[in-house]
Amino acid sequence: MTESAQTNIDVALVHFPVYNKTGDIVTSSVTTLDVHDISRICRTFAVGTFYVVTPLETQQKLVRRMMEHWLEGYGSEYNPTRKEAFLTTRVVNVLDDVVADITEHRGARPRTIIPSAKRYPKSRSYQAARVALNGDHPHLLVFGTGWGLEKGIVERADMILAPIEGLSGYNHLPVRAAVAIILDRLLGRETLAE
Amino acid sequence: MTESAQTNIDVALVHFPVYNKTGDIVTSSVTTLDVHDISRICRTFAVGTFYVVTPLETQQKLVRRMMEHWLEGYGSEYNPTRKEAFLTTRVVNVLDDVVADITEHRGARPRTIIPSAKRYPKSRSYQAARVALNGDHPHLLVFGTGWGLEKGIVERADMILAPIEGLSGYNHLPVRAAVAIILDRLLGRETLAE
Repeated sequence: MTESAQTNIDVALVHFPVYNKTGDIVTSSVTTLDVHDISRICRTFAVGTFYVVTPLETQQKLVRRMMEHWLEGYGSEYNPTRKEAFLTTRVVNVLDDVVADITEHRGARPRTIIPSAKRYPKSRSYQAARVALNGDHPHLLVFGTGWGLEKGIVERADMILAPIEGLSGYNHLPVRAAVAIILDRLLGRETLAE
Repeated sequence: MTESAQTNIDVALVHFPVYNKTGDIVTSSVTTLDVHDISRICRTFAVGTFYVVTPLETQQKLVRRMMEHWLEGYGSEYNPTRKEAFLTTRVVNVLDDVVADITEHRGARPRTIIPSAKRYPKSRSYQAARVALNGDHPHLLVFGTGWGLEKGIVERADMILAPIEGLSGYNHLPVRAAVAIILDRLLGRETLAE
């Protein structure tokens, strides 16, 4: 892979502040499987950095230890493609740290795009988001965990993406599946012309 | 959900015959997480039945016991949406049983569509597959596990789908992410017009 293949998109997976089942604002637990899957998905679509956001130090340590196994430990020899996926994954405290890091690295404050399972009056289509992503300006795609991101964060986004609605009214995709579908909708392309 | 929302697509996740890392033909282990995620993804896109295909009786029992927990046990009260996802998931021995079951239920032998991580001379685009799916004829989407489906199965498919190529040359998506992206490409639609 050449450096130029990198897109102008970074991804954050946020564990605080999110809702739990009963509507309280909580810190959700990190699912290491999400870190694995979303790292591989981000790598596939040439996302710049995948940020795992949690303020809990024990959870940060857990993710870092898991990643070290694959980056430097036995895992790096056993499965080099997993190592490759984790090279651009980072653990940070809060969403503001993500924005500051991107601003420093990319030289401009990223515009935030938040996919929501709920439809808002200002929700935009994937087509509109693809158009917005043209050009060089950095964009940060923010995913919530648990029962979704705290409402204020969603409302302050530069763009809210329409929900992925399937064909059945069933609206309970795993977040890792949502990340896969949304990155494909925003960045994927047909590889065969017919 | 009304019955009419069901599509003419069924999905199979095959654990034999598949390749392992060194190219031998093996039976891969069932990952219960795949069963969870792919059931939820299939439910979202109104797939008819999701078939988990393994000839190993112990593995079949494992999957059935896990599903019983969510369909009838404590899980069915704790998380009714998981129950809903598993209602159309089945465990069977071999791919031929899947074809026979669909033929009986849908009244016609399904055409098989196999997405492959490798490009074949007869690979077709997602656009071509969307066109092929118009109409009522049943179609079976077959996914391999491990290092991919035995070559003969792929070559006998009615249609081979082009690989999902991201932007980086990295070609190691988890099968559950591939199922999400492919069902979205074949069945998904924008919910907001702009």
